[in-house]
Amino acid sequence: MRTISLGLIFTGLISILGTPAQNSGEPVRLAVQQVLEQQQDAWNHHDLEGFMAGYWNSPELTFFSGAKATSGWQSTIERYRKAYQSEGREMGKLEFSDLNIQPLASDAALVRGAWHLTMSDGKTTHGLFTLIFRKFPDGWKIVHDHTSAAE
Amino acid sequence: MRTISLGLIFTGLISILGTPAQNSGEPVRLAVQQVLEQQQDAWNHHDLEGFMAGYWNSPELTFFSGAKATSGWQSTIERYRKAYQSEGREMGKLEFSDLNIQPLASDAALVRGAWHLTMSDGKTTHGLFTLIFRKFPDGWKIVHDHTSAAE
Repeated sequence: MRTISLGLIFTGLISILGTPAQNSGEPVRLAVQQVLEQQQDAWNHHDLEGFMAGYWNSPELTFFSGAKATSGWQSTIERYRKAYQSEGREMGKLEFSDLNIQPLASDAALVRGAWHLTMSDGKTTHGLFTLIFRKFPDGWKIVHDHTSAAE
Repeated sequence: MRTISLGLIFTGLISILGTPAQNSGEPVRLAVQQVLEQQQDAWNHHDLEGFMAGYWNSPELTFFSGAKATSGWQSTIERYRKAYQSEGREMGKLEFSDLNIQPLASDAALVRGAWHLTMSDGKTTHGLFTLIFRKFPDGWKIVHDHTSAAE
C-alpha cells in the first residue's frame, strides 16, 4: 500500500512539474529578451549607463571584440564611451535582429544575434554577437559578450 | 533510531558527494580541455576531419565570424576547407592560449580563449574565440563557435 501511494505521488509530481527543460525554458527566454529590449531602448536614448545595466557589474565580466579582450564592467563601459561618446563619435540607432535565446540551465542562457547600427549620416555597420547570461539575485545579466563586425 | 540512521546516511552522502558545483566542475573542465587539445593536435597534423570531430555533427551547429553566420556541421567544414585547404591556402600551426573553461551546468560549458596561427612563411594571425560546449552521449562537443581576428 505504501509503495502504491509513493508511486502515485511521484506520477503526480511528474505531471505537475514536467521536465526541467520543458518548464524553465520559456520564462528564461522572456526574461533574457526583456534585458535585450531594455538595452536596445537605452542605447537609442543615448543612455550608456542604462545599456550597461544589462551587464554583470563585476571585474569578471568579459567583452571580446576582434583580438581585444576587455575584462570588467568598468573597462567595458570605458571602451563603449571611447568608441561611441568621444569627440566625433556618436551612438547612432541600434537594432538587434535574428535573436536566438537558448536556455542552458535554470541560471544560464546563450544568446546568438545580429546587430545593426545606423549613424546620423545614414552610414551603417553591422555584425554578430554571442552573449552568455547568468541569473543573479537582481536578474539576468550578461557575463560574457563576443561581438564582431563586418570586415 | 530510524531518523538517526537516515541522518547519518544523509551526512555521509554530503561528505562523499559535496555540492554539485564543487564536484562537477573539474571533470567538465578536463573533458572539455581534452577536446580542445585533440582539436589542436588534429589541426597541426592537417587533419581537418579530426579537428571537426570536436564540433556537434548537426545542422544546428553555428559558427560566427565577422558578420558571417554559418549554420550546420557540413557548411562549417566547407568554410574551413575554403579558408585553409583551397589553392594557395594552408592550415599552418595552430595554438590555443588563455583558455578559460567555465562549466555552466552538468551538460554545458563556456570556453573563452585566444588562437594564434603561424604560416610556413612565418606570418601570423591571431584572435579570440568563444565556444559553447554541450555534453552528448558521445562526449562534449562545440555547439556554437564565435571566432574573431585582429583587425
